[in-house]
Amino acid sequence: MDTWRTAITKADGKRIIVRGYDLVEMMEHGSYPEVVGLLLSGHKPDEGERRLIDAMLIAISDHGAGAPSAATARMAATGNRQAPEAAVAAGILAIGDAHAGAGMACMTIIRDGIARAARESRSLADMARTIAIESRDAGLRLPGLGHRLYQEDPRTTALFAMAERYSKAGQGVAFMRALRTAVAETVKTLPINVDGAIAGVLHDLGYPPPTAQLIFIIGRTAGLAAHVMEEYTRERPMRVHIPVEYDGPPARDPRIEPV
Amino acid sequence: MDTWRTAITKADGKRIIVRGYDLVEMMEHGSYPEVVGLLLSGHKPDEGERRLIDAMLIAISDHGAGAPSAATARMAATGNRQAPEAAVAAGILAIGDAHAGAGMACMTIIRDGIARAARESRSLADMARTIAIESRDAGLRLPGLGHRLYQEDPRTTALFAMAERYSKAGQGVAFMRALRTAVAETVKTLPINVDGAIAGVLHDLGYPPPTAQLIFIIGRTAGLAAHVMEEYTRERPMRVHIPVEYDGPPARDPRIEPV
Amino acid sequence: MDTWRTAITKADGKRIIVRGYDLVEMMEHGSYPEVVGLLLSGHKPDEGERRLIDAMLIAISDHGAGAPSAATARMAATGNRQAPEAAVAAGILAIGDAHAGAGMACMTIIRDGIARAARESRSLADMARTIAIESRDAGLRLPGLGHRLYQEDPRTTALFAMAERYSKAGQGVAFMRALRTAVAETVKTLPINVDGAIAGVLHDLGYPPPTAQLIFIIGRTAGLAAHVMEEYTRERPMRVHIPVEYDGPPARDPRIEPV
Amino acid sequence: MDTWRTAITKADGKRIIVRGYDLVEMMEHGSYPEVVGLLLSGHKPDEGERRLIDAMLIAISDHGAGAPSAATARMAATGNRQAPEAAVAAGILAIGDAHAGAGMACMTIIRDGIARAARESRSLADMARTIAIESRDAGLRLPGLGHRLYQEDPRTTALFAMAERYSKAGQGVAFMRALRTAVAETVKTLPINVDGAIAGVLHDLGYPPPTAQLIFIIGRTAGLAAHVMEEYTRERPMRVHIPVEYDGPPARDPRIEPV
Repeated sequence: MDTWRTAITKADGKRIIVRGYDLVEMMEHGSYPEVVGLLLSGHKPDEGERRLIDAMLIAISDHGAGAPSAATARMAATGNRQAPEAAVAAGILAIGDAHAGAGMACMTIIRDGIARAARESRSLADMARTIAIESRDAGLRLPGLGHRLYQEDPRTTALFAMAERYSKAGQGVAFMRALRTAVAETVKTLPINVDGAIAGVLHDLGYPPPTAQLIFIIGRTAGLAAHVMEEYTRERPMRVHIPVEYDGPPARDPRIEPV
Repeated sequence: MDTWRTAITKADGKRIIVRGYDLVEMMEHGSYPEVVGLLLSGHKPDEGERRLIDAMLIAISDHGAGAPSAATARMAATGNRQAPEAAVAAGILAIGDAHAGAGMACMTIIRDGIARAARESRSLADMARTIAIESRDAGLRLPGLGHRLYQEDPRTTALFAMAERYSKAGQGVAFMRALRTAVAETVKTLPINVDGAIAGVLHDLGYPPPTAQLIFIIGRTAGLAAHVMEEYTRERPMRVHIPVEYDGPPARDPRIEPV
Repeated sequence: MDTWRTAITKADGKRIIVRGYDLVEMMEHGSYPEVVGLLLSGHKPDEGERRLIDAMLIAISDHGAGAPSAATARMAATGNRQAPEAAVAAGILAIGDAHAGAGMACMTIIRDGIARAARESRSLADMARTIAIESRDAGLRLPGLGHRLYQEDPRTTALFAMAERYSKAGQGVAFMRALRTAVAETVKTLPINVDGAIAGVLHDLGYPPPTAQLIFIIGRTAGLAAHVMEEYTRERPMRVHIPVEYDGPPARDPRIEPV
Repeated sequence: MDTWRTAITKADGKRIIVRGYDLVEMMEHGSYPEVVGLLLSGHKPDEGERRLIDAMLIAISDHGAGAPSAATARMAATGNRQAPEAAVAAGILAIGDAHAGAGMACMTIIRDGIARAARESRSLADMARTIAIESRDAGLRLPGLGHRLYQEDPRTTALFAMAERYSKAGQGVAFMRALRTAVAETVKTLPINVDGAIAGVLHDLGYPPPTAQLIFIIGRTAGLAAHVMEEYTRERPMRVHIPVEYDGPPARDPRIEPV
């Protein structure tokens, strides 16, 4: 089998080198959000980028037992109490296009929208309006906007404020705001949700689109772990009873209709 | 990297050989339950064993949307609608010690109980009574017995009847029945559930304990696939709303208790 | 929480009803491939459909330890030897767009190609040629064609012969053959692989596109289970050593470049 | 369905409260390692505990492409390139008893060893010696000791030094050191690996045994995400070719031995 080549980590029995940096040095002088940025981007974040990654990880670390990822992890844990890795993994598998997987689609729209505005010499506000109308007319929902619970997502407000404070807010954040304004004017008032906020900030930090979903997975794992532990310690096995109603074909009478 | 050695399948670009048998021949003249038995045991099942594997796979193929595995798969599918393999896998991860993982523990108890009875020259009924009392006194529930819904699990009744019809019922089936009788006399009346039924039959077919959980996983995947498809086609994304109540520490007032 | 509605299975403590059919009746008089078809399609397969589902499940049940799904399951099992459900699930997660997830894309191309041919009053051969050329010019590989090992995939040959034998071969099988011919004439000679074969046959049996990947998952779980068992019984934990070479940034000297 | 009760997070559309703390406050004034500790333990870590959690997360964030978890994630990604959550989850499923799941067993041994030493009025060194000899005589390997690559695990050295610097090192760390000494004297010289180091430190921070594996999962997800991204961007699909040798029964000749 061919040798696998990797530019991420060297672990050969001497030092552990991550993208050129010594892991033990990072343990002693760095921080985990910094290492997350280093692993995903290949460069070591400066102070502002580090604090934003930290804030993003905290922002999505948990959102309660009813979030699809946490609920899936807890449901798996009711049947499988001996393998916490299985229950946590089940929760991660719920993180897809409808739940936090929207970040990648959002970053793509941001990137393409900003590029198109530049090509056509248009303002971001104007470009956002076009995209809002095109999406509306195509019957498509824009990712990054809307939330079942929030008129204004407090995590977005905090993250954007921090991005400005650290002078990292750029066209990504601006474009998300322009999109929200445009959608409010042409469709309905929706908040920028945490996926959209992370998409805007990651764009401005120079991260590629797939990292949005990966950042969510990395941060949410902490909450999933806590929910699995609570399910194990606080609840009995098989304790979830979902009311189910069958509305399929009626039961055949085998005497009349043999299988 | 060392060459991986396997005694299961040879797929070298010519014929596909599974445990010595040609896969195409099996497609044309065999059956999938036969191949399941061949893969797991290394020998090709005779007619009776084939029909019992077929019956076991059908028995556990599905048990409704509320079973932990199906519910977990559906919950994952509400957040992740583009990766059916993720939702099906999430459902499989719910299959552990409390939900269908009991088969392995049950087969171990059967195997050890039969061996102990032989060593001590005791009847299976007598041995079962001892085990029932020992478990009761240790505060342990015996795997393979009990079900939230059934006084008598219809899948067990059918499977044991088929085992007898094909002259495959032996000490495994007998021991499960003895255990149920012993538990009824010393603890409470509980049915032999489908995990216990499969454990008894697999023992009599000569399969090792880990295969009980594997047979469950193989068979249940069909039901999980159907549930994922129904979630995708019939329901909107993020449609599950679980009522959740927080009973943790009250929210701190940041003015009084800064973070 | 709202009651979950399902048309698949009713399991209320009395009979177990799957799409109107009694599960115990199916155990006694049916077969697992029949139940797979019933679960996925909602109708009970006739004899020919049942034998084709059986053949498809056998066809993809395993393809050796080096297939991505089996290799992933075995790799997970080297680190996690106590949770077979985790290792099997890991193998299922390798089943995506590049490995057996092509079935859905293939069924979509078949469906759309046949519809377009009808609309434009063209033969399937003519339509296939157009699609082959369009894909080639767009730099896209057509799903369902090509295999690293086979000039002719023996599973395809057998499956198509069986489809004809049971009078089930229709436009789906014909279209896959036309596509192979067209690609051979315009691009290169490639076999119809097992994903393409299953796509063609499932189309002719009236199944929707997502079922191609699901049938693969259902059938392959048997092979994954066998590989996990072999990894557990035959090999030591952590036994896989992959030769890895680091080609990232050189290790920084902390005395010169402090973290 | 009953309301789910949780003491972890309240997310009701107003503030997001985690164990009593406001999530936005944590974003603005806290750190992710702090939130990890809060989620798992229920209390907000002080400065020293926070820095140790940070260091532990960094310590296990990655260990190269050849570690079972990373290799499993990469293998899944060769077949499934559209669902990064599936590949990351596959990597997490490799984290079991043989790979980082040893932390829980190790914490249990530490906890029981310290309690037994207190009960029997013995020193930790003396207790460790007894445990080393008992394990050796039972043919059991002690978790937390040994590593394929290291004579001395640099992550352990750094973590224990930091534990002492923050005045958090207690009986857990002492017991691991005593165990290493005892095993060196009675069996062979083995390093305390990162699982054993984390076990000792988490014990001294007051965390329960299951958190060792959970901390590993939380931290390692960052490395898995990077490996999945590298597999997607740097390598072609299906690029891993494992040399496999079949040593099962020879292929039967169907003319002589019909299926």
